[in-house]
Amino acid sequence: MTTSVIIPAAGSGVRLGENRPKAFVDVGGASILARTVASILAVDDLELDRIVVVVPAEMIGPVREELAGVGCEVVVVAGGAERSDSVRAGLQHVTGEFVLVHDAARPFTPVPVFRRVVAALRAGNPVVVPGLPVVDTLKRVDAQDRVDETVDRAVLRAIQTPQGFHADALVAAYAPDSDGPGTATDDAGLAERAGLPVLVVDGDPDAFKITTPWDLRLARDFAKGRA
Amino acid sequence: MTTSVIIPAAGSGVRLGENRPKAFVDVGGASILARTVASILAVDDLELDRIVVVVPAEMIGPVREELAGVGCEVVVVAGGAERSDSVRAGLQHVTGEFVLVHDAARPFTPVPVFRRVVAALRAGNPVVVPGLPVVDTLKRVDAQDRVDETVDRAVLRAIQTPQGFHADALVAAYAPDSDGPGTATDDAGLAERAGLPVLVVDGDPDAFKITTPWDLRLARDFAKGRA
Repeated sequence: MTTSVIIPAAGSGVRLGENRPKAFVDVGGASILARTVASILAVDDLELDRIVVVVPAEMIGPVREELAGVGCEVVVVAGGAERSDSVRAGLQHVTGEFVLVHDAARPFTPVPVFRRVVAALRAGNPVVVPGLPVVDTLKRVDAQDRVDETVDRAVLRAIQTPQGFHADALVAAYAPDSDGPGTATDDAGLAERAGLPVLVVDGDPDAFKITTPWDLRLARDFAKGRA
Repeated sequence: MTTSVIIPAAGSGVRLGENRPKAFVDVGGASILARTVASILAVDDLELDRIVVVVPAEMIGPVREELAGVGCEVVVVAGGAERSDSVRAGLQHVTGEFVLVHDAARPFTPVPVFRRVVAALRAGNPVVVPGLPVVDTLKRVDAQDRVDETVDRAVLRAIQTPQGFHADALVAAYAPDSDGPGTATDDAGLAERAGLPVLVVDGDPDAFKITTPWDLRLARDFAKGRA
């Protein structure tokens, strides 16, 4: 059962404070996007059909060039204003039974995380996401930053990507007659709204997402340690 | 208005996988505890009375020696089995109007975090904790790791330390006739149970806590970057 991967990489990454879209920022000699693509290709039993990279329209040419010859079929298409627009655009180009939606900004995601997600898809789960236990104490606050309550973190998971879907489940999640993307912060959230069961498998701290300058420094230290 | 700091450092740190209590693990040439003490002394307007370090009984001698001459009064006492036992033990030795309870394992907590906590205490808030917005998507799972719901992270804060208290508020939180420590994962949680209002001020990602080997590697990279 073959798999496609959608990488939504059209975000501006304003929180990162670099002068280019986040996926194209350099981390130790390679762009974040190139590292993420390489991390997917390292999963030798993925039965990978193709990778669909969704980028700002003006980046289509350069990205096609950068990713030419990586060793698998890469389709590069233009994304939209919101992340959900980009996933929707990528969805038009997937093939295979399974689709993984994977953040461009998680370049160090270890091979076993991909494997756990796909193994659970193969076992029949329509939607599978990696997640970690929450280690921080979490408190719910009001509009004045006063604590309403300390939340029970034991039942929470901090969700990462790749988020895996049976292809029809992802189509259903993004169907025009579903509740729509609205404020969902991840793709599995849309699937939940569409009534699909979502399974959480073990994530990995190395699969951290680069969002802020702090994360970028961490990523560059990481790249050094692995050079 | 003067301040004492309690550092509960009696934990075994089994999750760290080192062969010694966590606070005594070396990070770039200094113990985690020594770095944490130094970070407190860097706050030159803290009006610091004393630091009360709570350690395993057999470490009292070595810690007194290590921290002699750091430039402020340091009281080293034996802790208990649980973190709350250690804070209670430390509470017997504090002086001053304010008490900060600060994790030994947050050695890179920046000066402004301490300042924000103390400024809010001075402004009359009895309990003040630093916290960060939650960036991960959080899902609540059942016992089979199936998602029950995606949680609204916008109203949540990931809580750090130092947690600041008007001294009488901390005493009230730890009073024998309060609900008791139970499963509270932080000191402010006890104060909440005792009916005290808790204010959240801005934390800082550099104030991360060293818990796992992953965190320790991060800390060592940090120390290198600052050498």
